[in-house]
Amino acid sequence: MARILLISMILLLNVPSFSQDRTLDLMPVPRSVKPTGEKFRIKKSFTIGISGHPGERVYSEATRSLRRLDNRMGFFFLQGMITSKDSSRSAGLLIDVKRSAAVKLYEDESYQLISGSKQVRIVANTDLGAIRGLETLQQLISVDDAGYYFPGVEINDAPRFPWRGLLLDITLHWMPMDVVKRTLDCMASVKMNVLHLHLTEDQMFGIESKVYPRLHEVGAEGNYYTQENIKEIIAYADQRGIRIIPEFDIPGQCTSWLKAYPELASVKRDYELQRYFGVFDPALDVTKDYTYKFLDTLFTEMAQLFPDEYFHIGGDENTGKDWDRNPDIKAYMDSKGMTTYRELETEFISRLLPILKKNGKKMMGWDEILRPGVPHDIMIQSWRGTESLVEAAKNGYTSLLSTGYYIDLIQPADFHYLVDPVPVNTILTPEEQKLIVGGEATMWTEHVTPETVDSRIWPRTAAIAERLWSDASVTDVDEMYRRLDRISLLLEGMGSTHLKNKEMLMRRLADSYDTKALEVLVDVIEPLKIYERNAGDTMYTVFSPYTKIADVATPDQKVAREFRNIVTTYCSTRDKKLEDIIIHHLKMWKDNSAGFREAVRKSPVLAEASILSENLAKISEKGLQAVGYLKNGSKPPPGWKEKCLDLTEKAKEQGGRCELQVVTAIEELIETAGR
Amino acid sequence: MARILLISMILLLNVPSFSQDRTLDLMPVPRSVKPTGEKFRIKKSFTIGISGHPGERVYSEATRSLRRLDNRMGFFFLQGMITSKDSSRSAGLLIDVKRSAAVKLYEDESYQLISGSKQVRIVANTDLGAIRGLETLQQLISVDDAGYYFPGVEINDAPRFPWRGLLLDITLHWMPMDVVKRTLDCMASVKMNVLHLHLTEDQMFGIESKVYPRLHEVGAEGNYYTQENIKEIIAYADQRGIRIIPEFDIPGQCTSWLKAYPELASVKRDYELQRYFGVFDPALDVTKDYTYKFLDTLFTEMAQLFPDEYFHIGGDENTGKDWDRNPDIKAYMDSKGMTTYRELETEFISRLLPILKKNGKKMMGWDEILRPGVPHDIMIQSWRGTESLVEAAKNGYTSLLSTGYYIDLIQPADFHYLVDPVPVNTILTPEEQKLIVGGEATMWTEHVTPETVDSRIWPRTAAIAERLWSDASVTDVDEMYRRLDRISLLLEGMGSTHLKNKEMLMRRLADSYDTKALEVLVDVIEPLKIYERNAGDTMYTVFSPYTKIADVATPDQKVAREFRNIVTTYCSTRDKKLEDIIIHHLKMWKDNSAGFREAVRKSPVLAEASILSENLAKISEKGLQAVGYLKNGSKPPPGWKEKCLDLTEKAKEQGGRCELQVVTAIEELIETAGR
Repeated sequence: MARILLISMILLLNVPSFSQDRTLDLMPVPRSVKPTGEKFRIKKSFTIGISGHPGERVYSEATRSLRRLDNRMGFFFLQGMITSKDSSRSAGLLIDVKRSAAVKLYEDESYQLISGSKQVRIVANTDLGAIRGLETLQQLISVDDAGYYFPGVEINDAPRFPWRGLLLDITLHWMPMDVVKRTLDCMASVKMNVLHLHLTEDQMFGIESKVYPRLHEVGAEGNYYTQENIKEIIAYADQRGIRIIPEFDIPGQCTSWLKAYPELASVKRDYELQRYFGVFDPALDVTKDYTYKFLDTLFTEMAQLFPDEYFHIGGDENTGKDWDRNPDIKAYMDSKGMTTYRELETEFISRLLPILKKNGKKMMGWDEILRPGVPHDIMIQSWRGTESLVEAAKNGYTSLLSTGYYIDLIQPADFHYLVDPVPVNTILTPEEQKLIVGGEATMWTEHVTPETVDSRIWPRTAAIAERLWSDASVTDVDEMYRRLDRISLLLEGMGSTHLKNKEMLMRRLADSYDTKALEVLVDVIEPLKIYERNAGDTMYTVFSPYTKIADVATPDQKVAREFRNIVTTYCSTRDKKLEDIIIHHLKMWKDNSAGFREAVRKSPVLAEASILSENLAKISEKGLQAVGYLKNGSKPPPGWKEKCLDLTEKAKEQGGRCELQVVTAIEELIETAGR
Repeated sequence: MARILLISMILLLNVPSFSQDRTLDLMPVPRSVKPTGEKFRIKKSFTIGISGHPGERVYSEATRSLRRLDNRMGFFFLQGMITSKDSSRSAGLLIDVKRSAAVKLYEDESYQLISGSKQVRIVANTDLGAIRGLETLQQLISVDDAGYYFPGVEINDAPRFPWRGLLLDITLHWMPMDVVKRTLDCMASVKMNVLHLHLTEDQMFGIESKVYPRLHEVGAEGNYYTQENIKEIIAYADQRGIRIIPEFDIPGQCTSWLKAYPELASVKRDYELQRYFGVFDPALDVTKDYTYKFLDTLFTEMAQLFPDEYFHIGGDENTGKDWDRNPDIKAYMDSKGMTTYRELETEFISRLLPILKKNGKKMMGWDEILRPGVPHDIMIQSWRGTESLVEAAKNGYTSLLSTGYYIDLIQPADFHYLVDPVPVNTILTPEEQKLIVGGEATMWTEHVTPETVDSRIWPRTAAIAERLWSDASVTDVDEMYRRLDRISLLLEGMGSTHLKNKEMLMRRLADSYDTKALEVLVDVIEPLKIYERNAGDTMYTVFSPYTKIADVATPDQKVAREFRNIVTTYCSTRDKKLEDIIIHHLKMWKDNSAGFREAVRKSPVLAEASILSENLAKISEKGLQAVGYLKNGSKPPPGWKEKCLDLTEKAKEQGGRCELQVVTAIEELIETAGR
């Protein structure tokens, strides 16, 4: 409710309620958009025709697209399954495709979308381009007093980067098939084209192996994708023009492997699946031939299962300690003149490469594998800093960026949005720049479950998708947030639970249908950011409840963000309408603590957030005083400001692993009033 | 919001806000509950211990139960996976099980749950009983000022009927795996024990066959359960003590079979999957030996896949017309002296029986198969009226009731609740009564999708679950609704989308975050009931959008139901507080039409509901006048009442396949004022 009120008030004030010509509501922004002023009226008789040399993918995606349009506009379109019989050139939407494409790196994804009053046409070299155009069409639905229409446009579009990925970790918390499928649906709708599945960890070996069945039988406690599941995922993704990259993370992070096959271990001990999160010592013994035979057999099996050319072997966060603990490994290193475990890692990578090569695969790994002596035909995924991306390109490696796209770290969408794999001020030559193929958002799942994962991925990842698809010059943050808000609704319509699960989680948490007081608080708090939530890596385990206030609160809370913006504008303009909005919110927050106390009484699990609620009430009261002074043009008494800022400082304290997100805005009001 | 206000006002007035001793908030009501007044305090150190001779099921269900408790109360319990090592007799919850049971008809599901201040104990003969007790425990969580506790009770519980089922049709609309799994979770939480999967229809053959692969390849358009999926469903259900009954519906309703294998057909024609809903002529040619060989091979395959003793062959809604059209079949019937197609059906059943028998299966079918001459060892599912149930029992057949449990027909929970398979006034002898094993709610999916199916199943099916589990004397409707409201929240916490998808569907329908005006209307309308929604069976097809107002509106709207009750009470008591509630609602409805018109302007798909919104405003205005007269004790002018009733009559018109649910209540106000 608070959110709706705020939105409607803002709309009344200064945000244009109709799309701007250049971008309409499209996300990602196409390469070029020319509005023609015409309107294509959508009616019940609307049909889709397909011409050229399309593959099966276009027919099924066109059918899905037609159903999605109908689900939104409710026409009861007459056309059913679209097949090769539907080739009428006078169809309302005519799709023309030159050839069917494979889903692989560097495939042509360009398309043209031309709509006039009589027809909409999507023209593409490949079926991949055509289905990207179909997603644009979904976002073009417009309304005027005569009903639904597609605006007349000439869109010429193609991606800036060929690798626009999302890593989904399914090991720190298991992510069942329906999560994967709805994630693929949403990715496709913002034109992302790589789903990277992080399949193995200390906590879980999340995929069936038929050659080494103990890996999933012992290493997964029932939570793993069968090979049939994997085939289903690959087919589902292929349909949507999305590649699936598997990651088997070695030589560290492999407790689950070692529980199943202790003979792979560097140190003899009883291996149990890891329940905590963090970096642990267990590592493969990479000096034994047995290990390479094992990996050869396993990776040959997996290489056949996953069609993509790239195969991710992890390579990150090996502590080297278990290698130090094994005298045989030390002796091996001495015999080869190795002085650090990093050299042994480099040898390991070199010995893995031929195994992948003979299976037709290119190796991919985290930036730890980028070391002198590592062959050049590997793909580097940069995560520890953009420096490694630059270094990789300078040294002739293809690479992609994940630094800055760690969506598990609860940072706002604009933070990710402004991270560019090839920033304007890059020191790379144009040739080197071409080695940077794109980026990947990373959804590590320490603190998320299938119930909450969507709210960590969406809508923020749509901003990253735009960064990787659209021109580098598209950087207007306000405009991004305006469109993100529309896309967020579309993503929900596609199956994402990021909005509706907030309501569900609140009801469970309050144990009530009445979640009003809880929502008012939730809308202005965010979970602790970066790596602070799990202090010392000991607060949470895989068994912890992820159903609490920090799981309901999402990153980048809109109510809080817009309040901060309004306060900043008000402090410089003293706009009366903004003043009213500010007063409205401060009063609501001040009055909310009584309701929240009642909610805690009914549902004691909420008690950990009481401190946030009480602090919010206190600082809102001070904020109201501040606005009072500003309104009257009067001066606060001496010491008032300091006392207030003392309170706001205390209000920065966490509660339930969350922080208030309106403290700085209220401080700004206090500072301005106290000037 | 309207709902919350109404609820809080009602709570203030007359509904007890704490549980009554006899039932607490339990659903289904146990056989006996004795409160002891003690309290078992739940703390972070709470653990579960298991003793006796339990099977694997108890360990995994106890682990799941512990996580569910933690997800609601947020303690971060220290215990992880519960294994045979967790046998401490001093655990907070001690589960004692005598033996591991098979999931089959007539298994012992009884349990005792005894909680004191020091320990909670669940004692059961079988692990099935133990897991039923664990579900009761989930519902016992209570709160006082000192925090969470389990109330001290001695519960002795066992089901009244051994067959407490839900039919899920996956053919009229495809229901993916996640729907099945969350349905099983919710069923288990209200102690249901049979999921009947309706797997084949004119529209779809929804399961993989390896012996006749064209059945799913040609008959399913990609939507079918693989045999691996089926095994997963069976294991998931078994874990929760739920049986899976497959239904292969023959000899009619088999267009999908005939498209794949036309040689089975009674009439030669081009078979295409049926897109409409209704009863169609295609039927197996049951006079050919080929058909029986085919069924023998297929059912032998399926009998091995599904472990349950019962195998459902449908047998309903064969029109007989395609048999009439085939001279060979006519000749066959003549040669056997058969005068109606019903006799041929009877022969068909008789020839099918040995096929099932040699595979160790008992036949089950709809009540059409109950005919003179049909062998006695079959199970009759009564759907055309309770008479067939009585007839079956009188004739020595075991049977179960579905008449009255057709949850797709949008009737209120209390309607289903009061249908008893063995009513108090039954004419059956005690011996005959024993032949009635229970009942099954039926979720036919003509007009539901995975997005809406939960809101058709839940929470109403929990009332049916109670009818089938609890004593026949448990019939208090108000008390049922009070508990249903609590269980509805629990079911949402288990994964049901019946509440949260309302909000999602409204946002998509309004194409906006602001759904206030839409919700006010939705809360007082319900989709057309019984078979009226799909007038003439021609309005809807499998391709229609099920995202409109009739899909958001749910059966048995609480706001409307409670308003009707309040009006009735008010008309006899003239209670001033009720009067305030009534005025509040009528004003809200009267004022809502402006907002709704605005919503339609933004989202024309809503236009079909405008008539409902306008009518609601008009009759609410008349309702306000009526309350005005009642309040003042004044008489309305002559002709006022007739004019008003004219309006309310018109307001019974459907809009968007929905009807207003407060018209009769407003009529009652008008009638009372006009007296």
